[in-house]
Amino acid sequence: TLMSPSATSHRGPSPPINRTPRKAAAANMYGKCNHPADSSSSCKRLGFLQKNNSLEERSRIVTSFKERAAKNLQLSCDNVGGEARFRRTETDFSNLFARDLLPAKNGEEQTMQFLLEVVEILTNYVRKTFDRSTKVLDFHHPHQLLEGMEGFNLELSDQPESLEQILVDCRDTLKYGVRTGHPRFFNQLSTGLDIVGLVGEWLTSTANTNMFTYEIAPVFVLMEQLTLKKMREIVGWPEGEGDGIFSPGGAISNMYSVMIARYKYFPEVKTKGMAAAPRLVLFTSEHSHYSIKKASAALGFGTENLILLKTDERGRVIPADLEAKVIEAKQKGYVPMFVNATAGTTVYGAFDPINEIADICEKYNMWLHVDGAWGGGLLMSRKHRHKLNGVERANSVTWNPHKMMGVPLQCSAILVRERGLLQGCNSMCAGYLFQQDKQYDVAYDTGDKAIQCGRHVDIFKFWLMWKAKGTVGFEQHIDKCLDLSAYLYNKIKNREGYEMVFNGEPQHTNVCFWYLPPSLRGLPDGEERRERLHKVAPKIKAMMMESGTTMVGYQPQGEKVNFFRMVISNPAATRSDIDFLIEEIERFGNDL
Amino acid sequence: TLMSPSATSHRGPSPPINRTPRKAAAANMYGKCNHPADSSSSCKRLGFLQKNNSLEERSRIVTSFKERAAKNLQLSCDNVGGEARFRRTETDFSNLFARDLLPAKNGEEQTMQFLLEVVEILTNYVRKTFDRSTKVLDFHHPHQLLEGMEGFNLELSDQPESLEQILVDCRDTLKYGVRTGHPRFFNQLSTGLDIVGLVGEWLTSTANTNMFTYEIAPVFVLMEQLTLKKMREIVGWPEGEGDGIFSPGGAISNMYSVMIARYKYFPEVKTKGMAAAPRLVLFTSEHSHYSIKKASAALGFGTENLILLKTDERGRVIPADLEAKVIEAKQKGYVPMFVNATAGTTVYGAFDPINEIADICEKYNMWLHVDGAWGGGLLMSRKHRHKLNGVERANSVTWNPHKMMGVPLQCSAILVRERGLLQGCNSMCAGYLFQQDKQYDVAYDTGDKAIQCGRHVDIFKFWLMWKAKGTVGFEQHIDKCLDLSAYLYNKIKNREGYEMVFNGEPQHTNVCFWYLPPSLRGLPDGEERRERLHKVAPKIKAMMMESGTTMVGYQPQGEKVNFFRMVISNPAATRSDIDFLIEEIERFGNDL
Repeated sequence: TLMSPSATSHRGPSPPINRTPRKAAAANMYGKCNHPADSSSSCKRLGFLQKNNSLEERSRIVTSFKERAAKNLQLSCDNVGGEARFRRTETDFSNLFARDLLPAKNGEEQTMQFLLEVVEILTNYVRKTFDRSTKVLDFHHPHQLLEGMEGFNLELSDQPESLEQILVDCRDTLKYGVRTGHPRFFNQLSTGLDIVGLVGEWLTSTANTNMFTYEIAPVFVLMEQLTLKKMREIVGWPEGEGDGIFSPGGAISNMYSVMIARYKYFPEVKTKGMAAAPRLVLFTSEHSHYSIKKASAALGFGTENLILLKTDERGRVIPADLEAKVIEAKQKGYVPMFVNATAGTTVYGAFDPINEIADICEKYNMWLHVDGAWGGGLLMSRKHRHKLNGVERANSVTWNPHKMMGVPLQCSAILVRERGLLQGCNSMCAGYLFQQDKQYDVAYDTGDKAIQCGRHVDIFKFWLMWKAKGTVGFEQHIDKCLDLSAYLYNKIKNREGYEMVFNGEPQHTNVCFWYLPPSLRGLPDGEERRERLHKVAPKIKAMMMESGTTMVGYQPQGEKVNFFRMVISNPAATRSDIDFLIEEIERFGNDL
Repeated sequence: TLMSPSATSHRGPSPPINRTPRKAAAANMYGKCNHPADSSSSCKRLGFLQKNNSLEERSRIVTSFKERAAKNLQLSCDNVGGEARFRRTETDFSNLFARDLLPAKNGEEQTMQFLLEVVEILTNYVRKTFDRSTKVLDFHHPHQLLEGMEGFNLELSDQPESLEQILVDCRDTLKYGVRTGHPRFFNQLSTGLDIVGLVGEWLTSTANTNMFTYEIAPVFVLMEQLTLKKMREIVGWPEGEGDGIFSPGGAISNMYSVMIARYKYFPEVKTKGMAAAPRLVLFTSEHSHYSIKKASAALGFGTENLILLKTDERGRVIPADLEAKVIEAKQKGYVPMFVNATAGTTVYGAFDPINEIADICEKYNMWLHVDGAWGGGLLMSRKHRHKLNGVERANSVTWNPHKMMGVPLQCSAILVRERGLLQGCNSMCAGYLFQQDKQYDVAYDTGDKAIQCGRHVDIFKFWLMWKAKGTVGFEQHIDKCLDLSAYLYNKIKNREGYEMVFNGEPQHTNVCFWYLPPSLRGLPDGEERRERLHKVAPKIKAMMMESGTTMVGYQPQGEKVNFFRMVISNPAATRSDIDFLIEEIERFGNDL
């Protein structure tokens, strides 16, 4: 059998659940009171007294549980052809602790039961996420959660808590969180809960390995290589040639692009620092993501040397402004080095005209990066990929499958057209990791391309989703989301009380609009109207969150006061959810 | 009922599993042949012909399955008090596709069955991971996996594959991977498979959210805050004051430290670039992790401005060498800005003398960073934390719970003593994300501290493990690992055929040694012996991997030829596993 009645007899009576107030617990990190070696301490007795339970009684209960657990075994484990199949049995987790789980001796049955109990919690969560009668969130203020909700205490303690408490903590963590997969969650560019992607993440965390070498991640390293090649083919680079790597997010991917560009033009910066280069300037649009600015600061260029480009009223770069600013920079003696074109801006969902920007980059010998973190997914759609026309002329491309393609967080790729730059730029040849005298082809040890050392396995969920959906499945998803946003746009563009932030059908799924409560509709344009309108979206949003029915983002942009930015990447969303959102905005906004 | 017999009738006959050769598939991304809209294509017929199945027959089978599935429903779902409890039933996944899962209409039963089937695969994997009769790995060369093992094809296709194939892919991915939780996996600093940590990761991926705002990650944001404070208390900063953030790994954490130091001394670099600063130099030991060098390159300092410090024969920085080099740099007109002290070097496990280094940093007004990615965990042990004496004098500390503390990958913290620097250094105030007019206290929106925008939830698994083990549980784990390494050291230090790379008991769990096959033992010191010895470890390692019994790392260091670096962080390892490793080294090495 897997567990004999005496199997867990090494386990003493359980310590009390630590519920001391925050300060006391902190001061007490190694205090005598809570330490298990302190077997005769008064605290331990206190713990049992709290539960009105003598040592003897407690011990009797534990023994009885163990006997029951042993009896349950025949029921809970069928050994079919060497593969054990576990069934959930009613297990008392209040006397079990982390130390009773594998690798503990005879810990298998407890481990399986604990895992199955967690799976029960998670599958219920998944099921309810897709149920529109469930709230998107159960909002609480930080101080409320910090003070502790009934039974949910965020403080860490010196002593272990029972697995029963751990299961409660898991339930509560989900309860007070936000259901980002809910059909009415529209708050971010990353929404939805893809089941195959989820399975991919569960497996990834079970495999718990690291991408730096083929040695310890053979399958994942190859999956990454093949998937990156496929992405480069879709970008349009001949034969999918080039290079790339998955990074911890779009900001890091964009940072890679600036680093690689610098290495291409001024490789000596790697060894000598920025002092070895002339004054370099970078260009990006006013509407672009702030990560380009973060990269300018971090990499030593300075944010003042990132020149912001004007956009048209739809948020697209005006190429003539780029050329004028390049010429101006050169006249000042600066060296224009890098241009970021955004494919799908964060707020407007605008696509910069890549071909026209590429012409200028070629003319002035600048690196062209396309930030397709949000819009890259449209490359999968025959109907919409024309919005990225010219992307094949880019030197590098950021593309986040965790946004428009619904892959669970995190999954971001930086693709580079020229092979060897990533390696050249980042390689430090650490001997302890990237030995050249291994028995396999060490060209597959790709870790030295990264600015990281250890690197999380972000590829598997994406690879698995691609297998399960096929290229056509991603295409259908993207086309459907864009159809839904067109539906929203058409619904509100002439609706009373709505004003669009820019004219015309959106290029991406971003629909930007103001809602004007009836009390504002008669007001003339002017400061009062602006001030009042600026407060509408935050108020509606706050009410949405407190009622928990839906979530959508808002922000100001330049001179424009707060407006809603609706985005659709959620595969669960339907027209009825769009209708619901509008109803909610009007319900909450009507009396403002 | 959750699924009626007709519920999935929208699903047409399944497309053929795409097994076309790689090149054809690539050329065919949107080829007519595989597209589902092409309902009359000859390809689809071909798919059925391959399976010797007419359309009618296929349709009959599908219908029959649906009826069976509907009947199984009563069995597979007990609705107890509103919480459905699902039981695995035998399900035919060959006719099910990703599009049949939630959010598909009536997709709940299929989704639950698919998830439970995956859990079956994962729990079996977990169980076998701890079973010493299971191999650590089933080694294949890259070309073998790329050519495709029976039924396991890494290529991505245009058409979806059945969920049955997806399940096969999950099994194969695990089969050809490396069991990093196996009691005999010693290859990296991160080993082991903590069950509570695993549960934490499963939940994290189910919650699938992002750390940038309290708005969408309320619980996780607070957990991060409390955990970072606890870590700072343990470092020894008064009241746990200071700042910090979890980053995607130790290399990024170390990069943060250099960025923050620069911002502290030369804040104008953020806007004006490195041109605004004098020539800055950084210091770290010859034995330190290569990420400090990566940071010097990336951030625009240049690797030549990173000055390497001499170490004693145990791999610890010689403080006098630091002071001499600081003085030398100042004489040249450079500005010494940053010193990295390593707490637990990668190869030797050496702890630099922090107090003596801190004295020099104070004297010359330099930033002191302690890279405790590997050794930070020892702070949890009353017995071993003295090795980091002086760490409380550091300005910043890297500490990776995913290494010595057994937390699943990724989990790395950068801790900063002075509050406000992280924010000041990285903040770009993106209006669309960090609105100041939210209804809650926006001080909890910590995203603008990061160099990332979206940030993976790395905190939950760690928080949950801490709850489940208590501080004392981490302490026990760490003490046990250090005991095991002492056992190994004592076992081999005088054993015939072994030579230690450095004398004395190791400070961390790193035990570095050469194994000399009998044929080398008589050889005099000299080039021939060195050359032959250099090849021993790689040969033994290759044989280990091919037999799949155990894995341990090796590398050269400076003038020293290839030696084994044994490290112990695996909670599953016991003395018998150490004995086994030695037996394997001797079994494979005896005839070399």
